[in-house]
Amino acid sequence: MYKLALIGFGVVGQGFAELLRDKQSTLREAYGLEFQVVAVCDAQRGSVLDRQGLDLRELLAWVGEGKSLDQFPGEKHGLDALETIEVAGAEILFEATWTDIKTGEPGTSHIRKALAQGMHVVTTNKGPMALFAKELLQDAESRGLLLRYEGTVMSGTPVLNLLRHSLAGCCIEEMQGILNGTTNYILSQMAEGGSYEDALKAAQQLGYAEAVPDADVLGWDALAKVCILANTVFGAAIHPDPIALPCVGITGISVEDVARAKKAGKVYKLIGRVWREGNEVRVSVGPQELDKEDPLAGVNGAQNALKISTDVLGEVTIRGFGAGKTPTGYAMLVDFLDIHQSLSR
Amino acid sequence: MYKLALIGFGVVGQGFAELLRDKQSTLREAYGLEFQVVAVCDAQRGSVLDRQGLDLRELLAWVGEGKSLDQFPGEKHGLDALETIEVAGAEILFEATWTDIKTGEPGTSHIRKALAQGMHVVTTNKGPMALFAKELLQDAESRGLLLRYEGTVMSGTPVLNLLRHSLAGCCIEEMQGILNGTTNYILSQMAEGGSYEDALKAAQQLGYAEAVPDADVLGWDALAKVCILANTVFGAAIHPDPIALPCVGITGISVEDVARAKKAGKVYKLIGRVWREGNEVRVSVGPQELDKEDPLAGVNGAQNALKISTDVLGEVTIRGFGAGKTPTGYAMLVDFLDIHQSLSR
Repeated sequence: MYKLALIGFGVVGQGFAELLRDKQSTLREAYGLEFQVVAVCDAQRGSVLDRQGLDLRELLAWVGEGKSLDQFPGEKHGLDALETIEVAGAEILFEATWTDIKTGEPGTSHIRKALAQGMHVVTTNKGPMALFAKELLQDAESRGLLLRYEGTVMSGTPVLNLLRHSLAGCCIEEMQGILNGTTNYILSQMAEGGSYEDALKAAQQLGYAEAVPDADVLGWDALAKVCILANTVFGAAIHPDPIALPCVGITGISVEDVARAKKAGKVYKLIGRVWREGNEVRVSVGPQELDKEDPLAGVNGAQNALKISTDVLGEVTIRGFGAGKTPTGYAMLVDFLDIHQSLSR
Repeated sequence: MYKLALIGFGVVGQGFAELLRDKQSTLREAYGLEFQVVAVCDAQRGSVLDRQGLDLRELLAWVGEGKSLDQFPGEKHGLDALETIEVAGAEILFEATWTDIKTGEPGTSHIRKALAQGMHVVTTNKGPMALFAKELLQDAESRGLLLRYEGTVMSGTPVLNLLRHSLAGCCIEEMQGILNGTTNYILSQMAEGGSYEDALKAAQQLGYAEAVPDADVLGWDALAKVCILANTVFGAAIHPDPIALPCVGITGISVEDVARAKKAGKVYKLIGRVWREGNEVRVSVGPQELDKEDPLAGVNGAQNALKISTDVLGEVTIRGFGAGKTPTGYAMLVDFLDIHQSLSR
């Protein structure tokens, strides 16, 4: 019976909690996985802790009605994230607070604190893993703890799990991907003849793009994901700095560029790339004109995909959703299962 | 230190042995995986057994020169496959003999014998898994043994591993795939304007298609793979009978059909499908006109792909090689690693 603490209870945290609620009996029957959520803490929604376990069904309904967790029945209220991690007595932290790609906070402090407390960690927060993956993974390993982060790249589409388990006997040579759904949606709309401005507006209306879309359209989000791949798959320690690294977004692509590419049988995609050059690991983000035959060429709309070049298998491409409440919540679930199976060894 | 017996030492068996040879130190360092090949037996190439272990480098060179294993230095020679399994003292059988989709032999007898001897089994042989998956898996489970068969569907592209590990928390609703590279190559050539006859001839010259191409072009090979998916992922017990099941190949598709589809922005693919209908599991194989937006539409040439529909992740598509010496050899390696990691729990 694992005791779980959930820090960050927005879209992703609630998506995960819904899956825990809905799949509880399946997880017990199929994998012998049993758990209890002992704490939920969110900067906006308040916090509640009960070492006897919280009722997820009631708690989700409560939050769904817009009520504060500080009023939800339980043992303790009003604790902040670090206090919650300290006193909850949980074995696994599920960290789903907001991403700050410049500082990695507050996620990094939460993860460090949990590891220091002897907790395993699952996170969907790109900041800590893009900035401090090497240090955090070493910290976890030195303490005999597990740190999982499937949701940081392509949300729940299990690319990191695939790399860890299914491609374990391969040498990975290069990874190229469509890692940002917003820009891929905009480029797909432009390929149909729309202007950049109209496509961005549509993306904002659909909730794909923020009011200030810089992190997406300038390539910063894709760069963070590329750095996570470089720093975790290749063991590099590359800082996701869009000035120091080759990082170009899609704002310089005109309707004419897209039309010209289409005429030549090609298609514009924003490609994140990680590769080895001798002993160095290199990364880049930038628009590329792909041949129609490229496995990434047909990936349209808000979909993501990663093309993995290996020594013995040639290219393997995995494609799926790159965002969304349930897919990203699922990322936490598959990480939880992976921790359970690793600990059962 | 695992003791391994290799039965069937053609293209796939040799591909696997080459990977064992080339990745020996990597496997030891990264996964603590150590092994010794104690027997190699092939219906054409003879057999050799040495309980002290065989030198893979020398053995591969020997076979490469066309010499018989019966003359290769070792403790015992001339044993057939069943005798080899009986006396080799191996812990894992690697079964890579030829596929007979009607009888499942000789693979099925090899697998049954190995399980009865208390050996784990890895196979790339489609016959036993298409015909007797349920029975063989139950036999293995009841004895506390592992049976792995990644190479039977999409060769080393790790689709079964993905389904087992990375999609573990999902409910799989449907699978649709391009599971036969030969027919996909022929249809891709026809989409470029070639005739069926010319495309088939080219496929035969490239070694993709047999002189008697029925198993590929009539859909039987795709049907076998679809049944493996149905019988292992959905726990069905469907016999791959092309008469009783909806199974249509590509021989009825004309150049005109392909051209008409292309004009309508569509593309012909031979699609294998597995889905649930209430409590029933259904399978089918047949040509379909796919929309250009379908993740399977852009999969050309000898590539394979599987589109997996899930409850919480939406569609996940994996694409890669579906055949070949090294990719299929890799399938055995990833199964070996998976057995090692399961046994280390």
